[in-house]
Amino acid sequence: MRNIRMTIAYDGFSYVGWQVQPNGPSVQVAVEKAIRKLTGQDVNVLAAGRTDSGVHALGQVASFRIDSPIPCEGIRKALVKFLPPDIAVRDVVEVPEDFHATFSAKWKQYRYVIHNSPDRNPFLKNHVWHQHGPLDSAAIHEAAQVLLGTHDFRSFESHWPNKATSIRTIYEVTVRRQNFCPLWFGETDAGMVAADSGDFIWLEIAGNGFLYNMVRAIVGTLLPVGRGRRTADEVRAMLESMNRSEAGDTAPAAGLYLVRVEYDDEWSASDADRDNA
Amino acid sequence: MRNIRMTIAYDGFSYVGWQVQPNGPSVQVAVEKAIRKLTGQDVNVLAAGRTDSGVHALGQVASFRIDSPIPCEGIRKALVKFLPPDIAVRDVVEVPEDFHATFSAKWKQYRYVIHNSPDRNPFLKNHVWHQHGPLDSAAIHEAAQVLLGTHDFRSFESHWPNKATSIRTIYEVTVRRQNFCPLWFGETDAGMVAADSGDFIWLEIAGNGFLYNMVRAIVGTLLPVGRGRRTADEVRAMLESMNRSEAGDTAPAAGLYLVRVEYDDEWSASDADRDNA
Repeated sequence: MRNIRMTIAYDGFSYVGWQVQPNGPSVQVAVEKAIRKLTGQDVNVLAAGRTDSGVHALGQVASFRIDSPIPCEGIRKALVKFLPPDIAVRDVVEVPEDFHATFSAKWKQYRYVIHNSPDRNPFLKNHVWHQHGPLDSAAIHEAAQVLLGTHDFRSFESHWPNKATSIRTIYEVTVRRQNFCPLWFGETDAGMVAADSGDFIWLEIAGNGFLYNMVRAIVGTLLPVGRGRRTADEVRAMLESMNRSEAGDTAPAAGLYLVRVEYDDEWSASDADRDNA
Repeated sequence: MRNIRMTIAYDGFSYVGWQVQPNGPSVQVAVEKAIRKLTGQDVNVLAAGRTDSGVHALGQVASFRIDSPIPCEGIRKALVKFLPPDIAVRDVVEVPEDFHATFSAKWKQYRYVIHNSPDRNPFLKNHVWHQHGPLDSAAIHEAAQVLLGTHDFRSFESHWPNKATSIRTIYEVTVRRQNFCPLWFGETDAGMVAADSGDFIWLEIAGNGFLYNMVRAIVGTLLPVGRGRRTADEVRAMLESMNRSEAGDTAPAAGLYLVRVEYDDEWSASDADRDNA
């Protein structure tokens, strides 16, 4: 059996999320169906981040085992044909037997996009969170820094206790303005992210794992900071309260993107469990 | 009664088109409903271009008469609230009594967007026509020039005879590459359209009127030129044949945008009838 790792991008709008659900189509089922069409084999595809309904991915990583000699690039091209047009396969590689998309992940990066403009963009209703009033992105950035480091993040976890532990480490969080909405990974790769002006506010956050709805709860908590109605110290107190009802609302799924998943060279199992965001 | 003109943008994906249809929601009904919520009045909203199912608009122009003292900016702000998030109102102005959005139009500009890349963009499935093989945009541009001027365009009209006359005048047609998909009018206004490189091929065409499916039939006819399988002379022969079956296929609705409608100062009635595209 070969262990295959693939990086995929998808528009989450039409899906109930990554994972199989009784109430609608999931990305996982679409991917497994495409692999079955290609190989005739029933596979279980594991993903690094179990994205929720309506959440998008630019660089989700998934792995599966197949008994097939098809070269990786052949798998990629065939899957592109068998997948619906809102799921794209960026790359396919063969990895050592002990690689596991979920447990081998070292860190993940999510992005949340707010469209901060007096006018809604009618084309982006499923891809941003629209905020018509002015927001101070620098103030949001500053307040977000209180999240850095290792904390018990249960204040930002829906349905706690959802995991064995709510302790996670955040390595980096940046909030800056951009003049576009990231609807293709190429845009980011092209280095178009240097600006700090424009109608789109991107919150980018990297950590060793994320709890259920954690990024969206963080965004909902930071938003009043941008409006001048909450301070960084208050955000810190919310984090330290370890009480979900102390923190802010959960921001809508539409603005959330799983951008990147990183693994270390040894594919060693990390202590991150299967994450939700 | 005041005569009100508004410029609107919409994502056509969820609509059966501009005009009221029995088989699904139309943009017209959504706009009329919003005006009714605002004024309590039943109005008939007339549009410059009767966009088809799935066709988008960046600068559709519509007009209606109301008996209400609400200032134009107040109308705009209220409509934004009452309209679904995939319809935006760019501006609202009061115009002379004899202005008619449809008949006063002097010229219109449409844009068709092809995403020419080996890989589909999963976020743009309803907003571009994806073509994975290489296309020569300069050759398409050159061949498109045979359309300039006044011709009987019935070779590019679905369901001919659809109009009193199939004669239209094309003022300008350009085909060039861009590195983004136009999902907001601001992007165009910002002068980001100077480049001639990138994965997106924009065909922009301006004329005094367009027949049913005319732009999409033109795109479907020009595409083989980009593949090196059809010459400009052959496109000219297709135009001159005045036979729809001689010309190419109708390109999908997803890539089409009504960009702009221009009126002259006197709002004089033109000979353009109610157009479809």
